[in-house]
Parts: sequence; C-alpha cells; structure tokens
Amino acid sequence: MKLRQILTISVKLKVSFLNKRCISTINNHLNREMSLPRNYFENTGLLKEGHYNLQVGAPGSKDLAKIATYFEAATESLSKSDKRFGETLQYGTMPGDKFVCDEVAKFLSRQYGQTVQSGDLMITPGASMGLLILIRRFTNPDDNMFVENPTYPVFAKYVTADKFIKTVPIPMEKDGMDLKVLQEKLEALPKKEVSKRWPFRALMYVIPTHHNPTGVNYSPEKCRKIVELARKYNLLVICDDVYNALNYVSSPSNPTKFEFSPQRLFAYDKKDDADYQGNVVSNGTLSKIVAPGLRVGWYEAPKRVIDSLQDTYDAVSGGGYNPYVSNLTAEVLKSGKIDEHVQHLRVAHKERMAAVISTVETKLGKYGVTISHPEGGYFLWIKLPENISSAEVLSDSSKNENVTFVKGEIASVVGDFSNYIRLSIAYYECAEMVKGVEGLCRSIERTINLKNRL
Amino acid sequence: MKLRQILTISVKLKVSFLNKRCISTINNHLNREMSLPRNYFENTGLLKEGHYNLQVGAPGSKDLAKIATYFEAATESLSKSDKRFGETLQYGTMPGDKFVCDEVAKFLSRQYGQTVQSGDLMITPGASMGLLILIRRFTNPDDNMFVENPTYPVFAKYVTADKFIKTVPIPMEKDGMDLKVLQEKLEALPKKEVSKRWPFRALMYVIPTHHNPTGVNYSPEKCRKIVELARKYNLLVICDDVYNALNYVSSPSNPTKFEFSPQRLFAYDKKDDADYQGNVVSNGTLSKIVAPGLRVGWYEAPKRVIDSLQDTYDAVSGGGYNPYVSNLTAEVLKSGKIDEHVQHLRVAHKERMAAVISTVETKLGKYGVTISHPEGGYFLWIKLPENISSAEVLSDSSKNENVTFVKGEIASVVGDFSNYIRLSIAYYECAEMVKGVEGLCRSIERTINLKNRL
Ligand SMILES: Cc1ncc(COP(=O)(O)O)c(C=O)c1O
Ligand SMILES: Cc1ncc(COP(=O)(O)O)c(C=O)c1O
Repeated sequence: MKLRQILTISVKLKVSFLNKRCISTINNHLNREMSLPRNYFENTGLLKEGHYNLQVGAPGSKDLAKIATYFEAATESLSKSDKRFGETLQYGTMPGDKFVCDEVAKFLSRQYGQTVQSGDLMITPGASMGLLILIRRFTNPDDNMFVENPTYPVFAKYVTADKFIKTVPIPMEKDGMDLKVLQEKLEALPKKEVSKRWPFRALMYVIPTHHNPTGVNYSPEKCRKIVELARKYNLLVICDDVYNALNYVSSPSNPTKFEFSPQRLFAYDKKDDADYQGNVVSNGTLSKIVAPGLRVGWYEAPKRVIDSLQDTYDAVSGGGYNPYVSNLTAEVLKSGKIDEHVQHLRVAHKERMAAVISTVETKLGKYGVTISHPEGGYFLWIKLPENISSAEVLSDSSKNENVTFVKGEIASVVGDFSNYIRLSIAYYECAEMVKGVEGLCRSIERTINLKNRL
Repeated sequence: MKLRQILTISVKLKVSFLNKRCISTINNHLNREMSLPRNYFENTGLLKEGHYNLQVGAPGSKDLAKIATYFEAATESLSKSDKRFGETLQYGTMPGDKFVCDEVAKFLSRQYGQTVQSGDLMITPGASMGLLILIRRFTNPDDNMFVENPTYPVFAKYVTADKFIKTVPIPMEKDGMDLKVLQEKLEALPKKEVSKRWPFRALMYVIPTHHNPTGVNYSPEKCRKIVELARKYNLLVICDDVYNALNYVSSPSNPTKFEFSPQRLFAYDKKDDADYQGNVVSNGTLSKIVAPGLRVGWYEAPKRVIDSLQDTYDAVSGGGYNPYVSNLTAEVLKSGKIDEHVQHLRVAHKERMAAVISTVETKLGKYGVTISHPEGGYFLWIKLPENISSAEVLSDSSKNENVTFVKGEIASVVGDFSNYIRLSIAYYECAEMVKGVEGLCRSIERTINLKNRL
C-alpha cells in the first residue's frame, strides 16, 4: 500500500540533468533502500531534472570523473612495466598481493594517523561482500549477531528479509551502543562450544566511526569495554570501517587542516594483551573515498581470522579477491592522489553538512525538529516530533517537492525510528543539496501543520 | 604424513626462470590442490628453475602479457569518453550494466555459435564465487547436491572440508554422468517443500563441456534427460561452463578452423517448452579465456533465478559485481581482440595436448597406462594400472624430476581415482610442457617397475 503510493507518486516526478548511468545508479540506490522494482526509473524514464534523491550513499559524478583520470594514469604506469601488468591479470595470492597490502597499509596509516600493518590485511571485494563472507565463515543461520539499533539500512533490510543470521538489536546512545543492554543480552546468549574452526559464540556488527545513520563515534571507554566483552564471551566484532577517513573536525583557525577520526575499535584489541585472542575485524572499503565500482576493500583482522578466510573455496579457487583492480588501485594509492582527494572530500562534505544542518535548524527548529551534528561520514539524522512519521513526509516530499530520502524505520531490524529521516550528503554538490533540503523542509512543515490541524 | 613428505621433498627442488609473481601464482595453485602452507614457496624461495608444475589451471605469462595490452587500450578508449569512465566507477546496476551484458552476450554468441541473450545474463565475480552464491541463495547445509565423480578438484576438496552442502557423487561415463545412478539417488531424495523463495529441492553441479578433469562432453541425450529430471524433481542444475570456448576439433584439411563446442546444457532448458520452469544455470567465467585476475564471469540463467540473486545484501549493498572491471572487459570484448586470442589459445592448446598425449602413449602404452583424448579445455586425465597410486608417482616425480600434478583422488568427494593423474596444459608452452611430461613418464615407469619387482 505504502509502496504503491510511492510508485504512483513517482510517476509524477519531473527530473533530466542526470545522465543515463546516473539514473541507473540512483535507481540502484532506490532499490537499495526503498525496494522499488529493478530498473523502474530506467525503464520508465521517470528520473528527470529536479529530482533530489537524498538517500544516495555514493560519491557524486564529478568526484568519480576525477578518480577516473587517476586510474587511467595508473594503467599507463603499470603498462610500462610489461611483466607486472600481465601478472596482475593472473590468479592472485592470498591474503592479497603483497604490493597491494603494503600500499593499502601505508595509505590507511596516513589517513588514520595510526599504524596499520600490512601483515594484518586481507584484500576483499568491498565491505558488503566482506561482511557476508565473515558471517558465513563463522556462523550458521541459527547463531546470533548483536546489531546496533539503528544500523546501516541496507543491512537491516536484508538481514531481516533473508534471515542469514539471527539479530539482537542493541540501542544506540550518543557514544555507541548501550553496554548495559548488551551485557544483559550476552548473559542470555545460548551456550555454544567453540573450536579452532568455529572460534566464536556470536557475532557483533557495528559501525563505530561516523556511524550510518546517526553519525555517532564510539567513545574510548565503550571500545575498551566491547573488546573486554568480546574476549569474555568469544564474540567476533565486525566493524564496518567505511567512513573512517572522512573526518571533518578542524580548528577554526585552520579550517582545512582536519584532525584524525577517533582510533578504530580494532586498535583496542591489542596483540600484546595477556588475554589477546583476536576478536575484532575492521571491515574496510574504498567505496566511499575512492570509488564503489572498483569493489576493493580490506579486512584488518587477527591472524586466526585471516588464516581461516583464505582457506575457503571461493578464495582459493578464485585466486584471491579482485587481483587486477586491487593492483591498479594500489598504484593509485601509491601516487598520493587519493590523499589529496580525501582532503577535497572533507572540505566539500563539511561545507554541505553545515549548510544542511543550518537549513534544517533555521526552518524547523521551532517545530522541535532536531538534526545530528556528526564529526564525519556521509549521513545526517533528522528527528521529527514523535507524532510525525517519515512515511507521511516522504509521501508529501516525493509528490510535491521531488525529494526522496531513507525512512528511519528501514535502519532498524525491529522497525523503530519511524519519525526519523536519513539524508546523505555525498552525492549532490552543496547548492543542489540545499535546494533539495529546502524542499524537504517545506514537506516536513506541511506534514506537521496538517497533523496539528487535525 | 604424505603432506610432510611432499614438503620435505620440495625443499630439494631446484627451480628460477619464474619471476616472483609467477612463484606466488604457482604457490597459490599449489595451495589450491595440494594444501601446501600459504606462501610456502614465496617465503622459502624454493620454486626455482626446472620445476614443472603440471597442476596449474591458469593461463601462461605470455598470454596474460598480451591481454594486458588490450586492457591498456580499453582504458585509454574509455578515458576518451570522460563521462562513461567516471560512471563505471559508480555503484553498478543489476543484474550488470547493460553495455556489459550486451557485449558478453555478443561475444558468447560468436564463441558458442549459438545465440546468447543479453537479457538472460547476470554479471558475476567469476565462477568460483558464482557457484557459492547460488548454493547459498538456494540451499542450506542440510540440502543435497549431486556432483560428478570425479569433479573439479578444488570444489571436491572444499565441499568435503567445509560441508556447505551435502554431496551425492554420481559416476562419470564417457558421455556424462551415469543417469541410472542419478535416477536411483533422486528417488531416495528426502521430501522438501518448494516455494517462490526456495524453488529447488536439491542442486546439481556439473561441468558438461570439456569436463575438469576427464575432458568429457555430455551427449545431447544426457543433456535432454537431465533437464527432464531437473523439472520433475525441482533441481537447480549449475553448469560450470568455463571451458566452452576452448574447442580443439577441426578438420584435417583446415586444422585451424575449429568447430564449436557441443551446445551447452542451458540451451536444452527451452523457454517455450510447455513444462518450462527454469532449472539450469550456465555459470561462466572469463578466467580461462581472458584473464583470471579480472574476476569477471556471468550467469546465463532463468528469470526466477536472476530475480532472486539480485535481491540480496551483497548484490544490492555492493551495487552489482565488479562494475568497473566488467565495463573495461566489455570494451575489450567489443574490440574483437579476444576472439583472436581464443583462436590463438585453441591452436596452442591443441598442439600441447597432442604432444603430451603422444609422449605418454609412446612411453607408457606398454604398461597399460592410458590418457584421455579431450576435444577441448585445459586437462588431461591419465589412468595408471590399478595397483599404482598417483601418490607414489608424485613422491618420485617431485623428488627426482621436479614435476608435480594433481592426484586423482583430490577430484573425488569420496576419495576415488587414486590411480589417476590430472595434468593441465594451460600454463606452459609446448616444449616446456613436454619436458615436464617426459620427467613424469620416467617417474611413472620407475614406480611401476619398482612395484612389479616387489
Ligand atoms: C555501513 C556501510 N557498510 C557497507 C557499505 C557498502 O560498502 P561497499 O561498497 O564496500 O560494499 C556502506 C555503504 O552504503 C555502508 O554505509
Ligand atoms: C570447473 C571449474 N570451475 C571454476 C573454476 C574457477 O573459475 P573462476 O576463476 O572464474 O573462479 C575452474 C578453474 O580452475 C574450473 O576448472
């Protein structure tokens, strides 16, 4: 019913600065979080000029055009060393070609301001497949996974629909998940023998840095405690570390000199601790800072995890994950161009976030609408008054303003947050973004006023 | 014990025409089928000049160096159309970008001499992951999968070790699996309700064209019967169609004009049959005819299968499989260069196969050793006398001849074929290949003579 409503409304969209590939990309991301039928927009040609799709969690076209020039240069440079180019086309080594692991480690060390060791890395085909590979290697569908509430919407949607693991939602606080609730749930966890092949009793899925959708960063105290609990209960903690390079905090005196993001959870699981076992994986990706079409990511993971993951049918028979494109990517990382690019993203995203926050607060503060103030990442999280549902707003905004976004409840495995809205600031340039958000604000205002009148 | 033996022996190998990447590639393939510890050779520097690793099922270095030049050209041509290059770096559409599906369909149609429809395709990250994705989407570990005996060694090894599905081995005959045995096993299949989400009672994994390791092609009768049974019992038949382009049959009067391989099993599951449901998937890959490092393959599959596969966490959250490299690959396919390359492979492989067959038959025919005469693909399958095990031969050949190969039993989920040897003709050039095989023949001869003397 709601879906049909959206579809009907969509037919009236008037939208065409977006080229064909943009349309299909956006359509893809519509699929991602709104379950529109595949190629709906493409087939009907409905995504035309003026549609602001504020749900697209992907880099904008200008950014990718720039990245393309780096890949062209890398291909040329690789082709100058005849031998190596051919070798990148061969089945790869595990856990990833040494050159690739080394360049990724150096890049991450620069971006994190903390040492990432090449020997801790395994190359993956991106964070999405990376997460599934871990779940499938270490659990069966009857096992439990602690997940944040709210969490990454696409994950919440599919883990709920496909039941590839049982989820136990843990509420988010402003410095990470509620550890009191977690401890209660851990106490109730069914017994399960662990072994070398099956070393974990349960999994935990977290986004500790610039959380999607709330923007939260985990506090050092929570990170420490989670590692302690993971060791005690034999948990594997999987961190989607996909926004860690995108930190927007800088001093007012030097606004383009950015601080580093808080230390990642992986670093709290210290190898020289007496009770170290290796319980945390940093599941990273270049999708958000280089380009999603590459499908290149990495695990920064304990030896026991990497040893297990590379001894699988797909890793062995397939010869590692994406050797050609990961070698190309490593050439690009080596050139230093991505460091410049990330700096550019930080400047641009920071400006967009500030503009959107100010627009929303100026126009809607008086209604009690609030918006997150994240220190980095892609997302803003709007809280509407309790009696207003984002579904009602979406119905108005897509009809009257050509604006779409992710409804809060999609980010929850139990359907909470129906009065929340997630916006992505990654895709549109600042002026465009603000226009879309102004439309959204009008919709929210209308929805609130209508409700108050009833 | 056997493993330790091999390791000890390996220490004595004297082997250095192989560059570093070749070493790690070979090491990888050693891992693949002999379970040597990771990076063993790389770490110890033991793979030196003179080692003939006849198990490597991967293209040779010269072939990949040529492919590299095509990818360089494709990147350049893509970069001329600024917009499109950037777009290939974005999250991709499902079931694959239209340009990619179209070019793959055209290429396959030319290679198969049969029409492949773009609308039947979904782009995958290669056949290995392709197979796992299907298994995981449509079964749970308690379900059954009919597999050929013998089958692809890496699959046999991991499905046995990891138990991601139960296997039911079906003996191979010279025109495909034994359908009498299959029918008996089908009758004994446990009942299982099917539904839209779970449309299959069991899976079947087959390599109907230029079978790995036997070289067998399925007869049209067997193909027809398998489709009939698949419909009757609600089976999903997954065909690893990875060697279909590599047919070496030609007329003596025009030895470089090759015939097409037999029609793939997928084509027997005709959409206009009254009882059509869609039970066969052709799980293809460019690894063997373009380059394995790309990780680009495809499903040619029924609509119900593709619809289901693209509605998954990894496909949606990851934005399709390998959009950047599959677009580059499509540019290369479009250029027609790969058609020339496949022709070159056919000529080279045919020559190697003939040389190896003649060497083995000349030197070992008198001992009752036989060798397959495949019409295409990568592999030769040697049968030793019943009382000779390939493990004994391997022990001799790796010590005295620097020759290694895949023991037959690795190709069996029940450990049969211990007197068989699998050789790959893909990696070495002809003269090199024959030298290795001559060493192998000496080892076999010594092993037989020793046995006869005892
Ligand atoms: C938390 C989180 N994980 C994973 C992904 C997807 O990453 P990848 O493109 O590497 O699969 C996203 C992107 O939206 C994300 O926000
Ligand atoms: C039957 C079979 N399936 C799959 C593969 C691997 O294919 P891919 O490189 O596309 O994963 C091979 C290669 O050895 C094979 O022989």
